Amino acid sequence: MRILVPFDIDRPKTRLASVLDAAERRAFAVAMCRDVLSAISETPHRAELLVTAPLEASSADAPGGERAPRLDDFPETVDDRPLTEAVNARLTDADRPIAILMADVPLVTPATVSRLTDCSADVVIAPGLGGGTNALVVRDTEFRVSYHDTSYLTHREQAQTSDTSVETVDSFRLALDVDDPEDLGEVLLHGDGLAAAWLRSNGFELEERDGRTRAVRRSE
Amino acid sequence: MRILVPFDIDRPKTRLASVLDAAERRAFAVAMCRDVLSAISETPHRAELLVTAPLEASSADAPGGERAPRLDDFPETVDDRPLTEAVNARLTDADRPIAILMADVPLVTPATVSRLTDCSADVVIAPGLGGGTNALVVRDTEFRVSYHDTSYLTHREQAQTSDTSVETVDSFRLALDVDDPEDLGEVLLHGDGLAAAWLRSNGFELEERDGRTRAVRRSE
Repeated sequence: MRILVPFDIDRPKTRLASVLDAAERRAFAVAMCRDVLSAISETPHRAELLVTAPLEASSADAPGGERAPRLDDFPETVDDRPLTEAVNARLTDADRPIAILMADVPLVTPATVSRLTDCSADVVIAPGLGGGTNALVVRDTEFRVSYHDTSYLTHREQAQTSDTSVETVDSFRLALDVDDPEDLGEVLLHGDGLAAAWLRSNGFELEERDGRTRAVRRSE
Repeated sequence: MRILVPFDIDRPKTRLASVLDAAERRAFAVAMCRDVLSAISETPHRAELLVTAPLEASSADAPGGERAPRLDDFPETVDDRPLTEAVNARLTDADRPIAILMADVPLVTPATVSRLTDCSADVVIAPGLGGGTNALVVRDTEFRVSYHDTSYLTHREQAQTSDTSVETVDSFRLALDVDDPEDLGEVLLHGDGLAAAWLRSNGFELEERDGRTRAVRRSE
């Protein structure tokens, strides 16, 4: 199965601005994307990047990165339109099934990818925390994405309206998209890839506060 | 399999105090606990409450509650010690396997319970958001719980130190323990039990803010 991995090259992870500067956000976003590509590359499926601008060389700037796949190891399509339009342009003429897996779910493992692709419904949805859609498998030819607002509900409703079978994947690893600083703790707790290594080498560590463990950055 | 469901009768869900008063927190906590008990009761397993004080009659105070199991439908053990001590007292003499499933994971379904109990490792852990432990299956006789600090890591380390096989369940429904106001949105998004119904009937609805959908309370 083709698995599209949309990646915003231009302004990745702006909601992490309170803890990471622009260059750091970019390096961390690349590390997360490489974790996702690495997981897919250990399955029979084929990852393809869908990027907002041509890739520069993706350096091995994460600890251990020299052993992991690089962004430029994968086929790349450039489309500078918003995410929804760019993905739907691919869906228009693609063979089915096709999957879309976000680049910011670094806890994904090969087993997680297989759980997603093994579901047989016409539309398979992995919800993200907060109502987003972190992964889709699309077998229906009419289905189109809409990543605006609470896209998990939008996608379910669309499938149900058209009498298309829909299935939800119950996975914490797929649900954890890293958007906000409080998400970084989960990467340190459960990740063993480049994103977790990048955070550790840039001074992040776990600290318990108010009964929930979060990532905090050591002052340098 | 026996599944212990610890439930804090006395001071449930204090971190929801900014959006729910004490009586509401208690009613909502009861609704969540009944969702958990309801899910277990649709599996072959046997739920048992582990409560901090004797139950008062648990009223059918959630919409649709008259059709769901009530707290007093289940065997109850009262132990007013802190959670770790109370659970370990049960582990000391219990037959194995035994499971412990928290009362504040209202998205749990019968299928989720089965995924947990179907894992065959000596210690099976379902982590919660923020490094907690929302469910355990214990087959090892020496294993003891420690719910302090980042208990997911503590429990994994304990199992690994004693050369006991350990398995982690990758489930969003098990990971979502409701502690903070931002967790309520997930209940409205994915829940179809008493907890979600209680929130709706008490004025909570979904609203998108900053790209993540949250529960907000209509002013009355």
